Amino acid sequence: MRGRVYIVGAGPGDPELITLKALKILQQADAVLYDRLVSQQLLEYARGDALKIYVGKSPGEEHRQNEINRMLVELAGKGMTVVRLKNGDPMVFGRGAEECMYVSQHGIPCEIVPGVSSFLAAAATSCTPLTMRGHSSSFAVVTASEDPAKKSRQVDLSRVAQAVDVVVVLMGARRAREVLKELADTLGGDAHGVVVVSATLPEQKIFRGTLAELIELASTGAIQNPAVIIVGRTAGLGGGICME
Amino acid sequence: MRGRVYIVGAGPGDPELITLKALKILQQADAVLYDRLVSQQLLEYARGDALKIYVGKSPGEEHRQNEINRMLVELAGKGMTVVRLKNGDPMVFGRGAEECMYVSQHGIPCEIVPGVSSFLAAAATSCTPLTMRGHSSSFAVVTASEDPAKKSRQVDLSRVAQAVDVVVVLMGARRAREVLKELADTLGGDAHGVVVVSATLPEQKIFRGTLAELIELASTGAIQNPAVIIVGRTAGLGGGICME
Repeated sequence: MRGRVYIVGAGPGDPELITLKALKILQQADAVLYDRLVSQQLLEYARGDALKIYVGKSPGEEHRQNEINRMLVELAGKGMTVVRLKNGDPMVFGRGAEECMYVSQHGIPCEIVPGVSSFLAAAATSCTPLTMRGHSSSFAVVTASEDPAKKSRQVDLSRVAQAVDVVVVLMGARRAREVLKELADTLGGDAHGVVVVSATLPEQKIFRGTLAELIELASTGAIQNPAVIIVGRTAGLGGGICME
Repeated sequence: MRGRVYIVGAGPGDPELITLKALKILQQADAVLYDRLVSQQLLEYARGDALKIYVGKSPGEEHRQNEINRMLVELAGKGMTVVRLKNGDPMVFGRGAEECMYVSQHGIPCEIVPGVSSFLAAAATSCTPLTMRGHSSSFAVVTASEDPAKKSRQVDLSRVAQAVDVVVVLMGARRAREVLKELADTLGGDAHGVVVVSATLPEQKIFRGTLAELIELASTGAIQNPAVIIVGRTAGLGGGICME
């Protein structure tokens, strides 16, 4: 009797932005391990008798990752269908690959189900295209809270901003001011940016402005997590793309 | 009487990878304008009496874009709820922003509904993380078939490959060999890549190898559209992440 693990993207926040496929797998699950920002409404799709285990990590609780890995293997080892429900998409800053690798190495089949990543949701909800004819044919997605274990090569924002038309920074709230300053050093303080806080949730906030203006905003502490920062050639167009 | 336009991401191919939100909007639509690669199954969610208009463009049929824009305004102008159903996500090489801008400028409300982009699906289905602790904290998404009208700044693949850990190339089939060669010039022929053709569709094909091997593959014509090319530090891990 061998179970199975699904690493599933729950989407960016709005529970309706989950995929049909994710929903169907969730409905079949014997156990669901879910993150801090996953909507309560999504958990209600799971069977009444399914185990629902909160494994949300607060920043700094890195030691819990090993525990999550072990739980996935233990539950699937009992023959259960286990869903690991993650915000956004599992392959974008989600540790989905790490968990899947651990599970696979323990002989348990693992499948990854993609989801709408928070940056796609932020682009849609703020009407900020990541690409657009005549304006952008490339974008980069980086984190502002890089793992210090990755010594080999840190994100060089200046280099990234010179290589692509649009730069997206995830998990950038804590370091928003430094990130925006680094980008302004390369692109100029009059380049445009959009900051989306809590994309697609009722408490969503959208801030638009030049980098100089957004640096001031960041100084006030108005940029809270979860935040997506989009900077570059298309960020100044947003207000004109969707009629308010 | 004023209609409304929704620019909706249909997801990467598998009709189950549409979001609940997109599905609900589709079910309410009076008219659906859909692209070449959109699944027939998705159109069946629309009402029986909804207009279903195929506006798929073959490569080269650029003049149709103006026609699509005009149709959106005309139908919504009659008070209809109009869904523009696009593959993947509307803000990633989807012209969603262009269409929304045109519609808004004609006084019609427009909303963009995000979807699972083909590159997220390719990453999930091939078990190739775009980010991973200790391996990648940044990725870039570029097109291989850039619009010649964007004179200001062409994608410089060498620069992109030096700035981020993982490079994703979309719509790269026709120029796959050149693209892989350019990346090999920067990263070396022994860097790893994954090519996913028709991600999440029954005819899906996954090719893994060094860039040198994939360049040979491209020479045989095996890389057909729709193709996603993922190159970089995580591309060599895929086989080990999901047990086959």
